[in-house]
Amino acid sequence: MEQVNIGLLGVGNVGGGTFQILKNNHDIISGRIGIEINVKKALTYSLNEERKIEIPLDILTTNADEILGDSDIDIIVEVLGGIEPATSYMIQAMKSGKHVVTANKAAVAANYEKLMATAKENNVMLLTEACVGGAIPALTSIKTALQGNRFYEVSGILNGTTNYIMSKMYDDGSAYEDVLKEAQAKGFAEANPTDDVMGYDVANKLSILMALTFGKYVSPKDIPTVGITNITKDDIELAKANNTKIKLIGSAVLSETGELGYSVKPVKINCDHPLFNVDNEFNAVYIKGDAFGELMYYGKGAGALPTGSAIVGDIISIINNIWR
Amino acid sequence: MEQVNIGLLGVGNVGGGTFQILKNNHDIISGRIGIEINVKKALTYSLNEERKIEIPLDILTTNADEILGDSDIDIIVEVLGGIEPATSYMIQAMKSGKHVVTANKAAVAANYEKLMATAKENNVMLLTEACVGGAIPALTSIKTALQGNRFYEVSGILNGTTNYIMSKMYDDGSAYEDVLKEAQAKGFAEANPTDDVMGYDVANKLSILMALTFGKYVSPKDIPTVGITNITKDDIELAKANNTKIKLIGSAVLSETGELGYSVKPVKINCDHPLFNVDNEFNAVYIKGDAFGELMYYGKGAGALPTGSAIVGDIISIINNIWR
Repeated sequence: MEQVNIGLLGVGNVGGGTFQILKNNHDIISGRIGIEINVKKALTYSLNEERKIEIPLDILTTNADEILGDSDIDIIVEVLGGIEPATSYMIQAMKSGKHVVTANKAAVAANYEKLMATAKENNVMLLTEACVGGAIPALTSIKTALQGNRFYEVSGILNGTTNYIMSKMYDDGSAYEDVLKEAQAKGFAEANPTDDVMGYDVANKLSILMALTFGKYVSPKDIPTVGITNITKDDIELAKANNTKIKLIGSAVLSETGELGYSVKPVKINCDHPLFNVDNEFNAVYIKGDAFGELMYYGKGAGALPTGSAIVGDIISIINNIWR
Repeated sequence: MEQVNIGLLGVGNVGGGTFQILKNNHDIISGRIGIEINVKKALTYSLNEERKIEIPLDILTTNADEILGDSDIDIIVEVLGGIEPATSYMIQAMKSGKHVVTANKAAVAANYEKLMATAKENNVMLLTEACVGGAIPALTSIKTALQGNRFYEVSGILNGTTNYIMSKMYDDGSAYEDVLKEAQAKGFAEANPTDDVMGYDVANKLSILMALTFGKYVSPKDIPTVGITNITKDDIELAKANNTKIKLIGSAVLSETGELGYSVKPVKINCDHPLFNVDNEFNAVYIKGDAFGELMYYGKGAGALPTGSAIVGDIISIINNIWR
């Protein structure tokens, strides 16, 4: 069976999940696509790091050039996080003819045009499904099944940490600070939650969603962004009394005159809206189009395996496009 | 710009919707894919039929052979409904090297293996997204973005008529017969609602979903199927008192020992399940996999434009696969 070689940049949470799926489901995947996916090398910061999943020592390296310069490697999976050196690595990979799959929303949102142009110039694929909504296959279907439509809106609950906090405040009537501490203790929020609670993570995701849906790139720093840090118990009670829930929503809407409006901010969602029941760590992407009307995708927006699922889906898409 | 020619078998509700999308969104679609989609001929039962949308008389024909035998036509869209002559037309088209897109769940479910084998033998594509859940892009993403997963379950609310009836019985406390009459008056139920209310339509859709998800074809007539005709006001009240709703669910679940169980029947859905809030004419597909966990798609399961959206998506997928 023909073999496609993967170079994994990063073996943390998402990189580990990706490795685990490719290993555990190796036979089922090669049975489906008729090609074997082999993780040839993986970049780590330290060879002795403790890992949740076992990765053979002989594929690990601390030197990115060993991966980026390996002409046997066909596809680079970039899951380092952070804008640099991730962006430079992706560009270097594409310039040497490698396809790239990434879950790094910060890097993609910051350098979207440069990255896409590099993919085009070098005639390689750059796929980003894992950047938005974890396992939710929204980007894939916007690019395929929904392409007959004029799009009107793409919105969503795009951050699990803040949705968990909003849900607990609603359910338990607790204060923001108390729920945040509980979420940190349970691992649903980072020790430094700034990117999540200030809405910056959602702005990155919305920037990517908008670029794909409307063909218009807006830098995340140009998206008006308000987080959830000022929401009080009273705000939540008032919303509840009006049969609404407050959710942190990233939203891009085309006006009737063709102008694109966009923002990240807490929004009151009515109880009859499909987003109303998307609670806790779940994410949802909501889209409107002239033919399909409205669609919503609901699923896990983060985590090693859900995000790994999107990455493996992108690897398979590249193989189906290029090797078959 | 290169042109791909479509032959439309059927210009009723769904065929008309497909034509309308291809016409209204002609420029936006050709801008996206770099190829022009042209409906060259369309089959109708009568040239003088009244139609909701205008179709130029010079592309209409009452003779299927004029379409199937036209070597300039690249893709056949089959939206006739009914098992025959639709199946024979699709097979004839594929044998002469044409790709096929269909919304005809009855024909595909009845002849799944024969149709797929014919596509394979003739090295053409046969796409069926529009057969299941209208605009919902479930099949597309099961075949692409989710392919890294071992699947455990595929279930759903797959029929708008019965979901509308169940929703009205729940909301208004009305009897089945009364709601059915109201649904017929509003156009949400057919004059002869047998296929819908007896669950046969859902069995067709489940057969296709299962074949794609689990690689196992089960004829719809071998799927244990119970409709909604015996559900009483008391059943609904009892379900409501227990914080559940009764929904007609098509479901296929892999047991821990690897056996596939499947059925179509009314099921009590708990209020914390994502399917609980899928009401009225909306459909939803719910999937479980080992990596993504759980996913739900929510959208319009029927109608000229939503179903047409799925058909146009399939046409674009074929063009992206074959022409580019």
